[in-house]
Amino acid sequence: MNTFGKNLTLTTFGESHGPAMGGVIDGFPPGYKIDFDRLYEEVAKRRPGQSPLVTARKEDDRPEFLSGISPDGITLGTPIGFIVRNSDHHSSDYDEMARAFRPNHADYTYIARYGIRDYRGGGRQSARETVNWVVAGALCLQWLQTKGIQIEAVLSQVGPITAGDIFDSLMTSPEKPFSLEVNPDLRLAMDEFVKETKKAGDSVGGKVSCLISGLPAGLGEPVADKLHARLAAAMMSINAAKGFEYGLGFRAPYAKGSETLDNFLPTSAPGETPKTSSNFSGGIQGGISNGMPVFFSVAFKPTPTLMMPVKTVDTEGREMTLNPAGRHDPCVAVRAVPVVKAMAALVVADFLV
Amino acid sequence: MNTFGKNLTLTTFGESHGPAMGGVIDGFPPGYKIDFDRLYEEVAKRRPGQSPLVTARKEDDRPEFLSGISPDGITLGTPIGFIVRNSDHHSSDYDEMARAFRPNHADYTYIARYGIRDYRGGGRQSARETVNWVVAGALCLQWLQTKGIQIEAVLSQVGPITAGDIFDSLMTSPEKPFSLEVNPDLRLAMDEFVKETKKAGDSVGGKVSCLISGLPAGLGEPVADKLHARLAAAMMSINAAKGFEYGLGFRAPYAKGSETLDNFLPTSAPGETPKTSSNFSGGIQGGISNGMPVFFSVAFKPTPTLMMPVKTVDTEGREMTLNPAGRHDPCVAVRAVPVVKAMAALVVADFLV
Amino acid sequence: MNTFGKNLTLTTFGESHGPAMGGVIDGFPPGYKIDFDRLYEEVAKRRPGQSPLVTARKEDDRPEFLSGISPDGITLGTPIGFIVRNSDHHSSDYDEMARAFRPNHADYTYIARYGIRDYRGGGRQSARETVNWVVAGALCLQWLQTKGIQIEAVLSQVGPITAGDIFDSLMTSPEKPFSLEVNPDLRLAMDEFVKETKKAGDSVGGKVSCLISGLPAGLGEPVADKLHARLAAAMMSINAAKGFEYGLGFRAPYAKGSETLDNFLPTSAPGETPKTSSNFSGGIQGGISNGMPVFFSVAFKPTPTLMMPVKTVDTEGREMTLNPAGRHDPCVAVRAVPVVKAMAALVVADFLV
Amino acid sequence: MNTFGKNLTLTTFGESHGPAMGGVIDGFPPGYKIDFDRLYEEVAKRRPGQSPLVTARKEDDRPEFLSGISPDGITLGTPIGFIVRNSDHHSSDYDEMARAFRPNHADYTYIARYGIRDYRGGGRQSARETVNWVVAGALCLQWLQTKGIQIEAVLSQVGPITAGDIFDSLMTSPEKPFSLEVNPDLRLAMDEFVKETKKAGDSVGGKVSCLISGLPAGLGEPVADKLHARLAAAMMSINAAKGFEYGLGFRAPYAKGSETLDNFLPTSAPGETPKTSSNFSGGIQGGISNGMPVFFSVAFKPTPTLMMPVKTVDTEGREMTLNPAGRHDPCVAVRAVPVVKAMAALVVADFLV
Repeated sequence: MNTFGKNLTLTTFGESHGPAMGGVIDGFPPGYKIDFDRLYEEVAKRRPGQSPLVTARKEDDRPEFLSGISPDGITLGTPIGFIVRNSDHHSSDYDEMARAFRPNHADYTYIARYGIRDYRGGGRQSARETVNWVVAGALCLQWLQTKGIQIEAVLSQVGPITAGDIFDSLMTSPEKPFSLEVNPDLRLAMDEFVKETKKAGDSVGGKVSCLISGLPAGLGEPVADKLHARLAAAMMSINAAKGFEYGLGFRAPYAKGSETLDNFLPTSAPGETPKTSSNFSGGIQGGISNGMPVFFSVAFKPTPTLMMPVKTVDTEGREMTLNPAGRHDPCVAVRAVPVVKAMAALVVADFLV
Repeated sequence: MNTFGKNLTLTTFGESHGPAMGGVIDGFPPGYKIDFDRLYEEVAKRRPGQSPLVTARKEDDRPEFLSGISPDGITLGTPIGFIVRNSDHHSSDYDEMARAFRPNHADYTYIARYGIRDYRGGGRQSARETVNWVVAGALCLQWLQTKGIQIEAVLSQVGPITAGDIFDSLMTSPEKPFSLEVNPDLRLAMDEFVKETKKAGDSVGGKVSCLISGLPAGLGEPVADKLHARLAAAMMSINAAKGFEYGLGFRAPYAKGSETLDNFLPTSAPGETPKTSSNFSGGIQGGISNGMPVFFSVAFKPTPTLMMPVKTVDTEGREMTLNPAGRHDPCVAVRAVPVVKAMAALVVADFLV
Repeated sequence: MNTFGKNLTLTTFGESHGPAMGGVIDGFPPGYKIDFDRLYEEVAKRRPGQSPLVTARKEDDRPEFLSGISPDGITLGTPIGFIVRNSDHHSSDYDEMARAFRPNHADYTYIARYGIRDYRGGGRQSARETVNWVVAGALCLQWLQTKGIQIEAVLSQVGPITAGDIFDSLMTSPEKPFSLEVNPDLRLAMDEFVKETKKAGDSVGGKVSCLISGLPAGLGEPVADKLHARLAAAMMSINAAKGFEYGLGFRAPYAKGSETLDNFLPTSAPGETPKTSSNFSGGIQGGISNGMPVFFSVAFKPTPTLMMPVKTVDTEGREMTLNPAGRHDPCVAVRAVPVVKAMAALVVADFLV
Repeated sequence: MNTFGKNLTLTTFGESHGPAMGGVIDGFPPGYKIDFDRLYEEVAKRRPGQSPLVTARKEDDRPEFLSGISPDGITLGTPIGFIVRNSDHHSSDYDEMARAFRPNHADYTYIARYGIRDYRGGGRQSARETVNWVVAGALCLQWLQTKGIQIEAVLSQVGPITAGDIFDSLMTSPEKPFSLEVNPDLRLAMDEFVKETKKAGDSVGGKVSCLISGLPAGLGEPVADKLHARLAAAMMSINAAKGFEYGLGFRAPYAKGSETLDNFLPTSAPGETPKTSSNFSGGIQGGISNGMPVFFSVAFKPTPTLMMPVKTVDTEGREMTLNPAGRHDPCVAVRAVPVVKAMAALVVADFLV
């Protein structure tokens, strides 16, 4: 289905080449004054075409809010409906695709699932859908900030250019002022790598890392809605995501118990949330936040849309060659950064409302 | 909450040292004849104390089915209630733990969440809960086999002993008869490593890999209930899980698009599910199964219960030393193998019923 | 929250005096060709201002569909997003209401629930919301017709003018061709009564009766989602609804078991759905349809908006007199007829998809 | 499915002639000390065989709690699992029924839905299921009392013996100390009527009325989870329920707006919940409680199990005569009284946790 969340839900709709994307945010707290300028700014970060790194499609992407907000910008507690028009949706460049099953795309699986698919571009499978998530996430981010919760996300790997274990210092010295900022040289090298990949008509995978700080202890459910299970499901919902890890993540299989205990530090007052001397746990114990920073990474595959001819089959199962057409996103992980942040905000807000 | 699934749901209950664990399986297909012997066998695989690798607690773990099944063993379509008695639940060895917040356990987070916790051992946070999942999963596994679907899981890493990328051949030559069997020497080395870790009173992490074959194309939802997002949430619900990856997983950030296209092969008859020449996608496109094998891995941390004194704080936030008591599981990943399999079965069955 | 249904869901938004109403229909079957003309016609039936019986507000109410439908009008299986603009939403006539808690309206309860309310007319509590339901219901009605399922609804009581037990012949002689048509004289008397009520500036309650025919046996869940429980919840969600009954309804307390058995008639072929000689059960046994017609009635209260001064309190709890302003709907049950039909269609379709 | 509620859920299982009934209560507030004696007493009220009015089946019906409660009787916030053994489940008297579709029972509809049914008595369709609801409701009733909320239910009609509009004084003079107590003579007449019905081997319908007092303003959702819609769904889930009405109910169609306004009374302090001079609304406006008493009635049909031969068809659709066997409940509404109360408690608690 197309609904995320339980207490704060986001239900979305939209095909990339239909009239509009949109959604309904239900359960958003009443009485909160929205800063629309900041919201538009946050949404714009996702917009393609704003940097050499991302696909050339130009879109305004300014959401129109239709309900749930008073004329003076205050949330009413009622559902917030919004739409984002698809300004650029002629589909002449998609004609050939209409009769192809493109490899690593969902053309075939949509047919297997529904018996029909929107042949105008990506349809519902397009990453265009994530504009809905970023709109909803931007609202949540604002509200979370009023609770002292900050969420940051960065691109931490592109091909072989990697920030390494970007969470290292957070795991071993969690008391230090922590920055998720990637070394500028590394950042430049990533940009360079993406540009070269684009020039070659190819694409490359990437990794996005995310830090949630200021989270109070006690969020999450211990069995079926563990905080990290909900984060994992949200992140794996992002187009092209292939993996999720939090805390020690995929270094955990190598670890010894004696070397990864997060020892509690004595508290100075009763009832105070105890800090831990390390944070290999990634801020979650038994599915529930413990008051330490929560951090995780998401792996993304390269987009299968390439600027080179690709051999595949048509909808009748016959061989065909698909020529490059339309836009090309050399590294979807770049565009996923604000989406990761938005989805993290949705998950956290769902537990807090 | 404590319910997994949507159309086929499992709702569970139980504290490790209370009278019983148990659950309700709702939505299980009617008219299916259960093979109880095979079911008990499957459940027994999870039971601790059956190998030197796992914790010494002895439990029979035979579920008592209370409803949903006719006297002659046929499912009725009505909810299947079951309980598994906790035979060994005196808690004298847990007295000290009652006043401690154990590091990397959920003692503190339960207090933060509920203001109270079951001081008798792990309570609800104990991996004992997974017996419920294995019971439900064993039912689903039987039913899935009647649909030609097989699910296998193996231990693929313990500390530094790793089966490497166990999915390599599956990704590059998916047409070969595929076995998830780990090399016997490697398996022995893993056993040896666990034994030594146990002797040292320490614990170690691990990795479990899982393969689902025979899955028809068309399972999964394209946006909010992607097949891999549901698998991720299920796997990250398992105690001690720290990461999930499918298909290329965390190798995806390194990958080029041109090198990881899963090209469709021509079909011989119209309407036939096309195979792909490789399977970097892990059998899922856009959240929906494509008919190729689905595979994924789950990373597990070492258990924080060690056979050595541990410094921590008590429930008042004062320093204390916790002495080793009770049982010790040197590698929780070993016990997680049947749990991964069971949870995969629950997810797949939920999409199929 | 603002979502109806489980497998076929409708999530709605909109304040009566905001920019637009709208919703998302998720789970609608793919591959169905929509007849937009019939759909607009169905939606128009709900529109106020089309008869002397209903409130004077003029609205076009033509939904704009934004997704889930191909350019040639075929459903894609993806969510169908739509909006209905509020064309007439200046609110000058609502100024006084902004500072009043109107009796029998939800002004006060919204404040109790949310701490804020939309003072522009009815806001989210307005029956304007039902336009969303009628749009979604119209889609479902079309689809249900392809399955041979018909849903009719009529106004069966206005004040003292009542069609009596409109279901009598259906209960006792269910094999007769059945019409829910109300006697034309009675219909005229109802119209007359509403007109006089309007002239007096007053309002009156009413009753709507609904018949679902062609329903296959086997729809509904036996415990928590009984077909009639779902119908009851849907009907009681309609603004001003005060009661729901099906089959014998509130005549059941008077009935003897021996006089209300619906005896099965022998079938001519094995596996055939057996008919019953009477239908006191209203087509449902144990929460599941039995293949006989399903019928029910819904009681509606008079609207509390009157064309006469009303004593009440302001938002500070001080006495005030509220003068009549704006529109006046002498009998909300009239407008509820297409809404009852639409909600019945949503419930039935939810069990069928 | 078999789950009630959203935030406080009850998931149940059990066939009347299987080993046990049972359920899982999830989301019950932590830290509440249960009074087990009062709980057993409440559950015992539902037990058949305790008065001449109800069926002769003898059952102890004492629930065994398996989790979610500490050894000293305090709720843990974790799911509360319980079972109630079926002590009397030999089914020799059900042999003939195994090959019949009994009229007005769910025998046929279970076959239509599942293709199989439990031929041992009522199976899952039996009112035995309501023991699960009463156990969960008894827990909720205790907790609600700590919040000052009281729920009462009475039998208000049996056949022609009716307490009339038992809510009359509550609607017109809601400030009076209100008692739901039925006039003792009337009560005796009802008993007498049930006894005579039983003697005749027949059964009779009935009505149960319920009052919720002490409810704070602000409970309920304004669109899809209206407080009265949730109550309606819960009540219509009870076996044999045919109708639900609240406030004016089915008198609403007769009412004039000018005669049924619940005028707000001025408050003495700002922020105080305003009372109304009448309560035709039944304590709910726009789906949300307004702080006045909530009241409703539920109509029940006569049980179709009679102590006389009944003509019907067998599972092959052939005519047969079913002879009376087993137990006989002349008026199911009698037994429904504690069930109505329990379900009301579940709904209210779900909105309060």
